[in-house]
Amino acid sequence: MNDETWTTAEKAVARAAFDAAYNREVEALIQEIRDGASTVKTVDEIWRLHDFLSAKRHDIDGKYDYRYPVLIFVFSKLVREGWMQLSDLEGLAADKLTKIHVLSSM
Amino acid sequence: MNDETWTTAEKAVARAAFDAAYNREVEALIQEIRDGASTVKTVDEIWRLHDFLSAKRHDIDGKYDYRYPVLIFVFSKLVREGWMQLSDLEGLAADKLTKIHVLSSM
Repeated sequence: MNDETWTTAEKAVARAAFDAAYNREVEALIQEIRDGASTVKTVDEIWRLHDFLSAKRHDIDGKYDYRYPVLIFVFSKLVREGWMQLSDLEGLAADKLTKIHVLSSM
Repeated sequence: MNDETWTTAEKAVARAAFDAAYNREVEALIQEIRDGASTVKTVDEIWRLHDFLSAKRHDIDGKYDYRYPVLIFVFSKLVREGWMQLSDLEGLAADKLTKIHVLSSM
């Protein structure tokens, strides 16, 4: 799985898709915090917001790992979670797209 | 410092002042989060909000320690920070009030 080579053209597609997914997830988070935090009424809700942010930060920090040996897995997870579409990856070699498609369904 | 005894009347004053200070600080925090979070625009601002909540939670969890042997110190800190007024503690013995007043200025 880790012996893929990435052409210059594939790297450009991968980087753009990666950045777009990150921006989508982060924008959704910003909107969620803006909407959610504007209505907090109790200290318990504040601590729940804190717990939510702790989990999100850990998740996002770990997930957006742009290293070629792990990129197939990163993309599979992003597709599974809906932050990336397979169509964002047009231009990658067919074997990479197949792997991502299969792994994203697991 | 830790050999104070607390009468039933003093305990009632202390508990009410403690709860009032906690409610003031928590209300201020809720307002700060509502105001601040409603305008976040970037992921860096989200992580700064997270850092701020982590620090506040740690601070509040440690500070509101309702145990009589440490209560003079707890109250001194709350007075120093402005969450409690000495007048909230009317009804405590004069020596306790003096200690709190002196320690709160340090």
